[in-house]
Amino acid sequence: MSDLDHGHFLSQAVSLSASCLDEGKGGPFGAIIVKNGEIIASGVNEVLAKHDPTAHAEIQAIRAASVALHNYDLSGCVLYTSCEPCPMCLAAIYWARIDAIYFANGKADAAAIGFDDAIFYEELLKSKEHRKIPSFQLNQAEALKVFEAWSISDKKRLY
Amino acid sequence: MSDLDHGHFLSQAVSLSASCLDEGKGGPFGAIIVKNGEIIASGVNEVLAKHDPTAHAEIQAIRAASVALHNYDLSGCVLYTSCEPCPMCLAAIYWARIDAIYFANGKADAAAIGFDDAIFYEELLKSKEHRKIPSFQLNQAEALKVFEAWSISDKKRLY
Repeated sequence: MSDLDHGHFLSQAVSLSASCLDEGKGGPFGAIIVKNGEIIASGVNEVLAKHDPTAHAEIQAIRAASVALHNYDLSGCVLYTSCEPCPMCLAAIYWARIDAIYFANGKADAAAIGFDDAIFYEELLKSKEHRKIPSFQLNQAEALKVFEAWSISDKKRLY
Repeated sequence: MSDLDHGHFLSQAVSLSASCLDEGKGGPFGAIIVKNGEIIASGVNEVLAKHDPTAHAEIQAIRAASVALHNYDLSGCVLYTSCEPCPMCLAAIYWARIDAIYFANGKADAAAIGFDDAIFYEELLKSKEHRKIPSFQLNQAEALKVFEAWSISDKKRLY
């Protein structure tokens, strides 16, 4: 596909982001997922409407695409999103094995209107001892038994 | 709460992870969310069952807690998870404003049974030009108009 084609799909994600202004579902963010030149799923930010901090446009689109394809693996799909993905969405894109990302607004544009996830990137870089949200390890021996049982189970499926 | 109390809650998350062995919903991962000393939500990995690459135990627990509290903001909550969170879940924990994380198995334990998200951390650190999943910016001017409209809208709600 040419940049013109990609721009055309990206415009549709931007249009979705504009619909958020009227609906009050969440922030002004929209995303679509395309496979073989066809839109297979879309999503808008629904953090407020669904009381779900994970309901970013990209995550909603990934969930919808996975359900549509009956597959957690979205290889061969391209994500078009009205804004550069946050770290949560970017990691989700990796888990989903999406081929490529096209975005319109950049991170700095999002920060300028109050959605600043730059601190999350900084936090992810730190060792856990230095993060603002503290984390502690307990019960490892107990949990390792579950992993060991899983690793020799004939029901296991890696993904 | 004492480490004994935290260990008690964490044991319940580990028990949930063990239930995944029989049910085949996904990997062997479980999580619970506690507020004021009470369990308000739980989740297990359902990537396979729900065809959803984002359905990690922590994400499922965050979604359930947010719905239970009718609030995307989980301040005051503690997450107990059978395994150290991946970057997607960690960023979700930040978006949800969870107070603290207790985990049992570590990242290296997960990698040893085939769930290796170390590459995701490496990828998040890179500038986007150097990531394995390429990303491209187009249509910025068009998308900026939506952000500008949102920033002066009286319907906007920051979160």
